[in-house]
Amino acid sequence: MSKFWSPFVKDLVPYVPGEQPKLTKLVKLNTNENPYGPSPKAIAAMQAEVTDDLRLYPDPNGDRLKQAVADYYGVQTNQVFVGNGSDEVLAHAFHGLFQHGKPLLFPDISYSFYPVYCGLYGIEAKQIALDEQFQIRIEDYAQANAGIIFPNPNAPTGCLLALEAIERLLQLNTETVVLVDEAYVDFGGESAISLVDKYPNLLVTQTLSKSRSLAGLRVGLAVGHPDLIEALERIKNSFNSYPLDRMAIAGAAAAFADREYFAQTCKAVIDSRETVVAGLQALGFEVLPSKANFVFARHPQHDAAKLAARLREQGVIVRHFTQARIAQFLRITIGTPEQNQALLDVLEGV
Amino acid sequence: MSKFWSPFVKDLVPYVPGEQPKLTKLVKLNTNENPYGPSPKAIAAMQAEVTDDLRLYPDPNGDRLKQAVADYYGVQTNQVFVGNGSDEVLAHAFHGLFQHGKPLLFPDISYSFYPVYCGLYGIEAKQIALDEQFQIRIEDYAQANAGIIFPNPNAPTGCLLALEAIERLLQLNTETVVLVDEAYVDFGGESAISLVDKYPNLLVTQTLSKSRSLAGLRVGLAVGHPDLIEALERIKNSFNSYPLDRMAIAGAAAAFADREYFAQTCKAVIDSRETVVAGLQALGFEVLPSKANFVFARHPQHDAAKLAARLREQGVIVRHFTQARIAQFLRITIGTPEQNQALLDVLEGV
Repeated sequence: MSKFWSPFVKDLVPYVPGEQPKLTKLVKLNTNENPYGPSPKAIAAMQAEVTDDLRLYPDPNGDRLKQAVADYYGVQTNQVFVGNGSDEVLAHAFHGLFQHGKPLLFPDISYSFYPVYCGLYGIEAKQIALDEQFQIRIEDYAQANAGIIFPNPNAPTGCLLALEAIERLLQLNTETVVLVDEAYVDFGGESAISLVDKYPNLLVTQTLSKSRSLAGLRVGLAVGHPDLIEALERIKNSFNSYPLDRMAIAGAAAAFADREYFAQTCKAVIDSRETVVAGLQALGFEVLPSKANFVFARHPQHDAAKLAARLREQGVIVRHFTQARIAQFLRITIGTPEQNQALLDVLEGV
Repeated sequence: MSKFWSPFVKDLVPYVPGEQPKLTKLVKLNTNENPYGPSPKAIAAMQAEVTDDLRLYPDPNGDRLKQAVADYYGVQTNQVFVGNGSDEVLAHAFHGLFQHGKPLLFPDISYSFYPVYCGLYGIEAKQIALDEQFQIRIEDYAQANAGIIFPNPNAPTGCLLALEAIERLLQLNTETVVLVDEAYVDFGGESAISLVDKYPNLLVTQTLSKSRSLAGLRVGLAVGHPDLIEALERIKNSFNSYPLDRMAIAGAAAAFADREYFAQTCKAVIDSRETVVAGLQALGFEVLPSKANFVFARHPQHDAAKLAARLREQGVIVRHFTQARIAQFLRITIGTPEQNQALLDVLEGV
């Protein structure tokens, strides 16, 4: 603690992202990256931006990308916000939509960045326990709140909340924002963006880091009522006018336009997931039902921390959280068929 | 105003960046971009990053870039912070270092984003008048404050505060952070980074958007005592783990390493500035002494708004601020010799 810090800084507990090892030989199944590369059209679009024109500022509004997202989802561009990764988009949403002097509600097992944002913006966090099957119970959220947020599918469980349940929640909770964080929705879920015209308090966020395989580019987005988008724009334009660089705007727009490659790679990941689930179950693992590009699994006889360490020794990295209730689970990203087999081979030898 | 907004959002007055016209035929002298492209080595480094590896997250810490900056300035990497443009770096500094229940001091004529950050983070802004010659008077800052910030050279005046004056200010003001925003320092100023080992409350920010010609890439940085950097890291890691994409880390590091190209293009801009100043003076303009890549000039007989409109009609865009004291000035970015001549030609015809 330094006397020069704003006082709240000393109490911040920053988010810890999954390890980004500099060794390339590792089988990296720890940060839910896509095993396939980005769309070749996105690559070409980014290459076309690496020119002397980088001396010029990008479009501060990222209109080309907003248009691509609007086209993809059949919404208007004033219903779309874009930012430097969905983490930045979420940060602005916490700041601009969740400060109402009541607790923000989110599942006890969820994206571990949510309590961090609460700390950053002085928002009271109220964690609502998932049920015994690690599912969200809608009725538990019918209480005073400054907003509600959850990932769908949930992370790190991979479990999906059906669109009908989300709609019931929106009918229960009309006075504050319900934010559905769809980082993983393209691997078998159905986007709640179809509901934004009906519910003015629904905000949906997505990332291009997972299904669109552009984690290295840093692009995320939100879709919702123009009033909600305006709050995000006001914050953004009071924070950083140009969060997206020229390659990000062009590459992300091209990725949204290439529907065929997107469908094909999402299907490959989904197919691999089912193979991994079957393989893990054959080894005695309990695997939560996943609609994400990862699975969450525990073994009745093997300690998760020891399994993670053993995998690491063999060059396979997975993610292990020490939090109560889930300390015996491993979160395993779906890789290429070869990477998945390498994982199963190590586990088979345990 | 929507009931879903956090209450402070309705009072936000966002920053308005200079226009980014989509027409390329314009002579664009309005946003202080560099007329020369980025270092060819930076271009090559970015091209090398546009691969399938974009599926992977970037290094969350940007270590390669921190090392390049540390090497350039002869500091340690724990004295360096990097972010998505210096605007993001400044935002984190306001949040993490300037919330102390007292006013933040900055010049009345200065970067117009400062009062916006104050609005975003609930910081009281106290603007200190520049003197009659538009210079900062150090003694005026000897008063209770939560911090002091100013651009050096100042924007939009271009006037430089000498390093000795900054050192006097640091000796006057030891209990709060003094932030020197060096967006334009490479065009004839001397960086205060040479003072960071001596003054633990000095934070210096820079951008790669001006002298390193990478406005389209979005990279900025701060250098200061490790304690100050830690505050910024805590905020950053509670906001967005990965603000810099893979091209940004690689391109910015390569730009810092290419000292020869940097020296050559900075010199070309400085030489052109002197030509523009002489040309404007020959036309009867008063030009403030500039050490930036722009000049701030007024004509005793011609209204600035009308001059800006006339230039615009002729395809030359400059920036005109309507704020008191400077409403008769134009801020004119230094372009290529051809662009500068186009500007002078239009003004000569007025």
